Amino acid sequence: MSARADRTAASLPRRGDYPYALPIQTRWMDNDAHGHVNNVEYYSFFDTVVTAWLIQEAGLDVRAADVLGLCVDSRCTFHASLTFPETVEARLRVGRLGRTSVRYEIALFSADGDEPAATGAFVHVYVDRVGRRPTPIPPDLRRALEALDAARPT
Amino acid sequence: MSARADRTAASLPRRGDYPYALPIQTRWMDNDAHGHVNNVEYYSFFDTVVTAWLIQEAGLDVRAADVLGLCVDSRCTFHASLTFPETVEARLRVGRLGRTSVRYEIALFSADGDEPAATGAFVHVYVDRVGRRPTPIPPDLRRALEALDAARPT
Amino acid sequence: MSARADRTAASLPRRGDYPYALPIQTRWMDNDAHGHVNNVEYYSFFDTVVTAWLIQEAGLDVRAADVLGLCVDSRCTFHASLTFPETVEARLRVGRLGRTSVRYEIALFSADGDEPAATGAFVHVYVDRVGRRPTPIPPDLRRALEALDAARPT
Amino acid sequence: MSARADRTAASLPRRGDYPYALPIQTRWMDNDAHGHVNNVEYYSFFDTVVTAWLIQEAGLDVRAADVLGLCVDSRCTFHASLTFPETVEARLRVGRLGRTSVRYEIALFSADGDEPAATGAFVHVYVDRVGRRPTPIPPDLRRALEALDAARPT
Repeated sequence: MSARADRTAASLPRRGDYPYALPIQTRWMDNDAHGHVNNVEYYSFFDTVVTAWLIQEAGLDVRAADVLGLCVDSRCTFHASLTFPETVEARLRVGRLGRTSVRYEIALFSADGDEPAATGAFVHVYVDRVGRRPTPIPPDLRRALEALDAARPT
Repeated sequence: MSARADRTAASLPRRGDYPYALPIQTRWMDNDAHGHVNNVEYYSFFDTVVTAWLIQEAGLDVRAADVLGLCVDSRCTFHASLTFPETVEARLRVGRLGRTSVRYEIALFSADGDEPAATGAFVHVYVDRVGRRPTPIPPDLRRALEALDAARPT
Repeated sequence: MSARADRTAASLPRRGDYPYALPIQTRWMDNDAHGHVNNVEYYSFFDTVVTAWLIQEAGLDVRAADVLGLCVDSRCTFHASLTFPETVEARLRVGRLGRTSVRYEIALFSADGDEPAATGAFVHVYVDRVGRRPTPIPPDLRRALEALDAARPT
Repeated sequence: MSARADRTAASLPRRGDYPYALPIQTRWMDNDAHGHVNNVEYYSFFDTVVTAWLIQEAGLDVRAADVLGLCVDSRCTFHASLTFPETVEARLRVGRLGRTSVRYEIALFSADGDEPAATGAFVHVYVDRVGRRPTPIPPDLRRALEALDAARPT
């Protein structure tokens, strides 16, 4: 489970700061012995919103494409608890877009309220599927990432 | 799945840098569609080694104690892939011990080799179980944390 | 992952045979190394639709009620694969309502098509929370179960 | 979580009835809000002992072989609870060996005691990887299954 971290809510991002949203139904077994969604599951929500965007919005064939995004770094700051049976809204934006890597920023929201229960990041490095050496992000995916980034409020 | 991050192996910590070790059998479903343990499961190994130490070494009754450790921050850097059916060795040390919080540092190792597949951190803030306000780490737990920290090579 | 079992689709139940429905967003890590939702996750969908119904429809306080439903038996027959990022519809009906136990019947559906990807059952025995001895299903819950059963087409 | 089912312990199988054993470290998040390993995770232990045996004992390359075992049916009867941080022993035997399918029987044991916490079954149908049509179990795997079956006490 997780707790409100020691920072003021005023400084936290809002839903509108993240252009893409995916609702995720929590599962009974997400709750741990403390009665709230276990901290590990937050990363499952991160992983899911990133990959759903890649498949559904960017059109990446994650199972057959020549390239593969490997997670090299992720992190999460927990601000409030989530509890089954609520539906969590996972929201996504581009943090930094490099030549071979992209940093996604994610926030998780409860159904009510505009403050995130968690904020975090997830870095993908693109490699070729066979040799697993870093490789440039393919042009189609780069365009989709640029569009996602452009949809972010300024 | 995960990739070797862009850093030299020479700078990575070794098994001996972490005094406590827990072997964790991987599960078939840990492997994701890319054929390696999914990045989310690495946090499950973090969460498990921390809580196993708390129960088995520090004697904390995680279900009934007056205080509760809430995860407020975690992070992981992925250096190499892990694959079912290997047994992962999760190793633990104290990173920073504060008045109401403790930062654990964790490394995950494959059966062979002395370089970690992942390194990361996990911060617990202690709160009272009912009001969930930050509270000092209980004396018994503090002593156990100090002993774990003292067991770290200098 | 799972396969079409050796039975004719004609004999399989349809959506309308199960009065209660819960959409569940699949997660990237549900997919196993074969590229489809792992068989274990089907039981997570079973567990989730039962508990969501208990909390949201029957009004049971699953964390504080004097009684507790313990799973003593479950089973699943797999008819077709499910794949991230699809949303699964889990549907529920009462199979058999006894004095201290209830057998739920569940079917999982893909977004398209009226044939279930899986059908199965889940048996709860009610016990008192402290002594864990079988105890009659509480009257309020029994009424909710009877109403769910009555909503099933005849 | 799970409960002792309504059957006498005398009728339950013992460790020695299952020739193959795999110890599986429980994980903190296996525990659900009732404080015991969630019923769904029992199937993860089933899935894991079957696949570990296939890879480590039968030498099947589960990711590249021409054939694939698809789970078409599984079931579990829960006799007693399991709780983190205990190590579960998953034990395996052959139930029925057919031309294109095999039924495994599994029992889960706590570290202490000789009565299973759960017993169940898991049916694999073999299909060719591409067309996914039932296909005979390959000769090498059949021999390994026959040897596992022969190792069962009579």
